[in-house]
Amino acid sequence: MLHVPLDERSYDVHIGHFDAEEVADKIAAAVGKPSAVAVLVDEHVVLVSPRLPALLAALGRRLPRVQSFRLPRGEAAKNLTAVERSCEWLAQAGYDRGSVVIGIGGGAATDHAGFVAAVYLRGVAYALCPTTLLAAVDASVGGKTGVDIPSGKNLVGAFHQPRGVVADLGFLETLPEREAAAGMAEVVKAGLIGDAALFTKLESLGRSAFASAELTSAVAAAVKVKIGVVSEDERESGRRAVLNFGHTVGHAIETASHYQLLHGEAVSLGMVAALRLGEARGVTAPGLASRTQALLDRLGLPVDVKPHLTRETLAHVEVDKKRRGGAVHFVFVPRPGEAVLCDLPLDEVKEQVAAAF
Amino acid sequence: MLHVPLDERSYDVHIGHFDAEEVADKIAAAVGKPSAVAVLVDEHVVLVSPRLPALLAALGRRLPRVQSFRLPRGEAAKNLTAVERSCEWLAQAGYDRGSVVIGIGGGAATDHAGFVAAVYLRGVAYALCPTTLLAAVDASVGGKTGVDIPSGKNLVGAFHQPRGVVADLGFLETLPEREAAAGMAEVVKAGLIGDAALFTKLESLGRSAFASAELTSAVAAAVKVKIGVVSEDERESGRRAVLNFGHTVGHAIETASHYQLLHGEAVSLGMVAALRLGEARGVTAPGLASRTQALLDRLGLPVDVKPHLTRETLAHVEVDKKRRGGAVHFVFVPRPGEAVLCDLPLDEVKEQVAAAF
Repeated sequence: MLHVPLDERSYDVHIGHFDAEEVADKIAAAVGKPSAVAVLVDEHVVLVSPRLPALLAALGRRLPRVQSFRLPRGEAAKNLTAVERSCEWLAQAGYDRGSVVIGIGGGAATDHAGFVAAVYLRGVAYALCPTTLLAAVDASVGGKTGVDIPSGKNLVGAFHQPRGVVADLGFLETLPEREAAAGMAEVVKAGLIGDAALFTKLESLGRSAFASAELTSAVAAAVKVKIGVVSEDERESGRRAVLNFGHTVGHAIETASHYQLLHGEAVSLGMVAALRLGEARGVTAPGLASRTQALLDRLGLPVDVKPHLTRETLAHVEVDKKRRGGAVHFVFVPRPGEAVLCDLPLDEVKEQVAAAF
Repeated sequence: MLHVPLDERSYDVHIGHFDAEEVADKIAAAVGKPSAVAVLVDEHVVLVSPRLPALLAALGRRLPRVQSFRLPRGEAAKNLTAVERSCEWLAQAGYDRGSVVIGIGGGAATDHAGFVAAVYLRGVAYALCPTTLLAAVDASVGGKTGVDIPSGKNLVGAFHQPRGVVADLGFLETLPEREAAAGMAEVVKAGLIGDAALFTKLESLGRSAFASAELTSAVAAAVKVKIGVVSEDERESGRRAVLNFGHTVGHAIETASHYQLLHGEAVSLGMVAALRLGEARGVTAPGLASRTQALLDRLGLPVDVKPHLTRETLAHVEVDKKRRGGAVHFVFVPRPGEAVLCDLPLDEVKEQVAAAF
């Protein structure tokens, strides 16, 4: 169990292989005495996971008026139309301010559920059961909720902290290999920016990092890095930006791929780009880019940046810059476990990234 | 100038007759140094108010990158589709987290603008220029923002405090008489729940309460009552509920009228009902219902409750009850300036309200 200390309200994150009774116990302990419970669950989980029915039944034995609502699968839940549909269901089912929302699914479902909880009746409590590796690492900590609009991802949202998070890694058994690998990119990122031992461990494990016992401790270590960063800076005014390591170029590659690449795959490429740029500027220790590239490759992630450095990708870096008010905020990793923030002129980034490959 | 003291961030509310330069000065002082300014303005104000062009120009002389976006008129702005459109405009125009939103218009526009500011990029700063009497009284204080969904009004929203509010009562010159009267219902409510002197003053003024000098002090007194209540209870867990005086029955009447009645008109009827119920239960001093009814009538507000006590209205009280988790929270006014909260069984409310007319 990991503890997320916050000014407003602290909560616990549980990571491991649990049975339905254990998950329900932990959720029930986290949410206290709600008037009713609304479970928002990713349709994909409904369709493929043998664990869901037992979990819903176990929740029903512990909590009042447990009903569930099926969210459109994956990214299809990340828009305001889907949010309105969930809120409308909540209203018609009579959920009041004392109710609790429980989000079950991948990152899109947890972002959706958190945002619905943030805005329904101007805010109700919620808890999360992430069912993908990415969601376990990424959505467990930070309280960032939100949805996409046509102009871009996550442009509408709210900071809203959950009452608790229970990541039952048993759900990962039904996760496609490609998505598991994509989630692992965030674990590698956590090692690079904040936990040298995690990074080295991943290098020694390679693909066996996906094996169950190793996975629990790797995910826990990654979440711990994130807790450390976020509890320092709850509202992302400064330090929290180190979590964007690999995201400046990665996000642009993701957009330019028209989301054919998974987020974690784009971040994998973005981290390689950021490390090469760091080496070119003398910020990053020579060799770290190659080491990381080798690790990501073994984990099944894409590392060949060059084909992605199109004019369109570089244009997206520019849009991102405009949105952030002028400079490109860049995160460098000098050596594993350490991250530094720099504001760079856009042209330098474009030129040097292009030159590094 | 009234000061709204809050834990998080205090702000000032200015009420009076100002010229464009004065309004812009006050807004500029409130918002500090934003990277850019997005003005969301009710289409109705764009079409009818001669004051708007000068105000936009004055803002442009003081603040960076001032651009404006026209909201659909009135209630048409209060839905998630309109919110998405505003956010999309903000994103495409490149507004970043350092930007400020300024909402200009009636209650629907200020609720919309506040909610957009609450969720765009997970929250940017905002300020408001309410242009109706209702918005000046109601939207200035409380930080309640939000929109409607098919199931009901204000069911989606956020608590988000503005950096400042400037209510230039000059905008009221173009306000239809019926809307001015509806806004005055909230001023009467403020007197009843928290300011006996305001209530008596309104009784002595009658229709001349709408005259400019009297109006400024009446609106200021009403906002002051609200500040007193809200600063005690920022998140509406308890005491803040006294602001719902007249709203239990009023809201049901409003819904049952399919919004043919303005909110203030419905609240007028709801206050009469609540005072009659109070007298019937011996909570309210005998005669206050008739005094209030006479005052509301002189101000041009509807007071004949009986035709509205249909089965549909009473059913809406029931829906409201369900949403609030069982009991009807009822606000009684024993005498002007004093409010008490009671939880009542639904059947008693229905029966006694019906019997009182």
